[in-house]
Amino acid sequence: MYAAGDVRVEDVPDATIAAPTDALVRITRSCICGSDLWPYKSHAGEAMRMGHEFIGVVEDVGAEVVTVKAGDVVVAPFVASDGTCTFCREGLQTSCREVVFWGAGDNDAGQGEAARIPHADGTLVVLPVGEDDALMPSLLTLSDVFATGHHAAVSAGVAAGRSVAVVGDGAVGLCGVMAARRLGAEQIILLGRHTDRTDLGREFGATDVVAVRGEDAVAEVQGLTGGDGVHCVMECVGEEASFATATEIVRPGGTIGRVGVPQFRAMAGARPTFLHNVTVAGGIAPARAYIEELLPDVLEGRLQPGRVFDRTVALEETADGYRAMSDREAIKVLIA
Amino acid sequence: MYAAGDVRVEDVPDATIAAPTDALVRITRSCICGSDLWPYKSHAGEAMRMGHEFIGVVEDVGAEVVTVKAGDVVVAPFVASDGTCTFCREGLQTSCREVVFWGAGDNDAGQGEAARIPHADGTLVVLPVGEDDALMPSLLTLSDVFATGHHAAVSAGVAAGRSVAVVGDGAVGLCGVMAARRLGAEQIILLGRHTDRTDLGREFGATDVVAVRGEDAVAEVQGLTGGDGVHCVMECVGEEASFATATEIVRPGGTIGRVGVPQFRAMAGARPTFLHNVTVAGGIAPARAYIEELLPDVLEGRLQPGRVFDRTVALEETADGYRAMSDREAIKVLIA
Repeated sequence: MYAAGDVRVEDVPDATIAAPTDALVRITRSCICGSDLWPYKSHAGEAMRMGHEFIGVVEDVGAEVVTVKAGDVVVAPFVASDGTCTFCREGLQTSCREVVFWGAGDNDAGQGEAARIPHADGTLVVLPVGEDDALMPSLLTLSDVFATGHHAAVSAGVAAGRSVAVVGDGAVGLCGVMAARRLGAEQIILLGRHTDRTDLGREFGATDVVAVRGEDAVAEVQGLTGGDGVHCVMECVGEEASFATATEIVRPGGTIGRVGVPQFRAMAGARPTFLHNVTVAGGIAPARAYIEELLPDVLEGRLQPGRVFDRTVALEETADGYRAMSDREAIKVLIA
Repeated sequence: MYAAGDVRVEDVPDATIAAPTDALVRITRSCICGSDLWPYKSHAGEAMRMGHEFIGVVEDVGAEVVTVKAGDVVVAPFVASDGTCTFCREGLQTSCREVVFWGAGDNDAGQGEAARIPHADGTLVVLPVGEDDALMPSLLTLSDVFATGHHAAVSAGVAAGRSVAVVGDGAVGLCGVMAARRLGAEQIILLGRHTDRTDLGREFGATDVVAVRGEDAVAEVQGLTGGDGVHCVMECVGEEASFATATEIVRPGGTIGRVGVPQFRAMAGARPTFLHNVTVAGGIAPARAYIEELLPDVLEGRLQPGRVFDRTVALEETADGYRAMSDREAIKVLIA
């Protein structure tokens, strides 16, 4: 990405093994993230490599790699982590002491043909399928979008019997609906104004849709919850207004699980959330921590989070994929 | 309180039973709260009755009151709550559907001779001691300050093996140190710059004192925690700068338990706390929920939170009590 709106597919030096803990992966599927749209709208400065969600086939591994080998089909979570530090052992791989973000500096990234994978043992998860398995779209969501929706649900304390609101009908919000349903939520209110998306949200498990914003949305959620608000809010947008809505629809004593990358400096509602003991939890999703847990539901077909992909482009068409997502023509774009 | 700095002790109409669920309590001990100092510094507008922490003797009860009777020595938490609504049953009495704040409107308040107690059954806790028992200072802290310190610790997830930092060496912070110790914390870092207070904090269980502020404080806490920060931050001040410090000393994946009444609109650190999955929990303490749990430790002398009172004034000297606390001559002032 050279600048806002300027995405180019270019030749770069081949990815290679540089450290004995590296793997070299030929990328077979990747995609565009809602968070990629922030720089697509505003990026200035040095060009950067894009893409942090991908599946591929291991081509080669460094001498110290033991859990993956050439030929393995693998999914990569959206950061690389060593798998051995305190934070990795606690399941917070996004705060790994040796964390590597795809595309940062000279690192390879996911929207490309191949990538060097640092900390291959800590990062990659082998998938027991062929590289063109029909489950690929859903398996790909484990790298970020479904894991992030799941993280929103976990952070918000979703459990059986809890009322839930999901703020945002993007791919993360939709996966969040699915994750909330999976964790046993009975009432799942989806806040979103795009009928094609909220229709999919209903199929994923939303029991109610609130198609207005701001104070009107707050009033509708209150009406759906006997005036109390919901136990669990999953904030899947990251804008100041959506976060403010989250603070206004959460029940006293409830929890806001936030996974929308904050596009603002400070969290609203210091006093309202204080008065009613609202907890704000969550953050960037430690996808690596969730893959093993979510994988069986995807492999056995019980969940199909890959349905959030409603357009597929070839790698050389990636710029048009960004445009389609930015224009809201597509919910989420697969690159295959 | 007529205005900032203008506290007067005046005759008001006698407190009376107005509803069958009321009790009439003769107040034998009350005190001044750190939160009373905010209006003492800035209050403008109508005069208001002050005081929300008190112990007294029941003089009379309404026809429907069943858990307290004339002659009982009782402690009142800092809001009245009905004890029967959803939130009360969940232990969040501060969000009671019928919550009553002392001193709001025409309500009686604690810094006086007597008070009408709405929702007497839901609000008052009988103390098995005489009205002049030597434990009175410590029992009085159950109404707010020790309960609030405990709430900070609970909200911050304090438990055995966790590292803890307490931001603020006021009475709440000091009680928070005691509460953290009680819950099994091994490392308790107290951030405060007043030696008389931090000395008491060490007696209450602080293992380390950080006597600087801002970036210097952050650096010292990092040094004391191997560079990681603490699992649990107890924010016991409520200023923007103290909250910002909390966000900078919390460990990735850690929790900030906030009980300082926020003197700012928005919580700092939307992005840093997002990146490291920091949870912000807590708020106004549901003291009523904690009294039974904390009472035995006080009655049996294992804990002496009443040591935060380092000055006692008579009711007619209350204005001087405010001045002494505001000038930091006293940590916390008892009115007896």
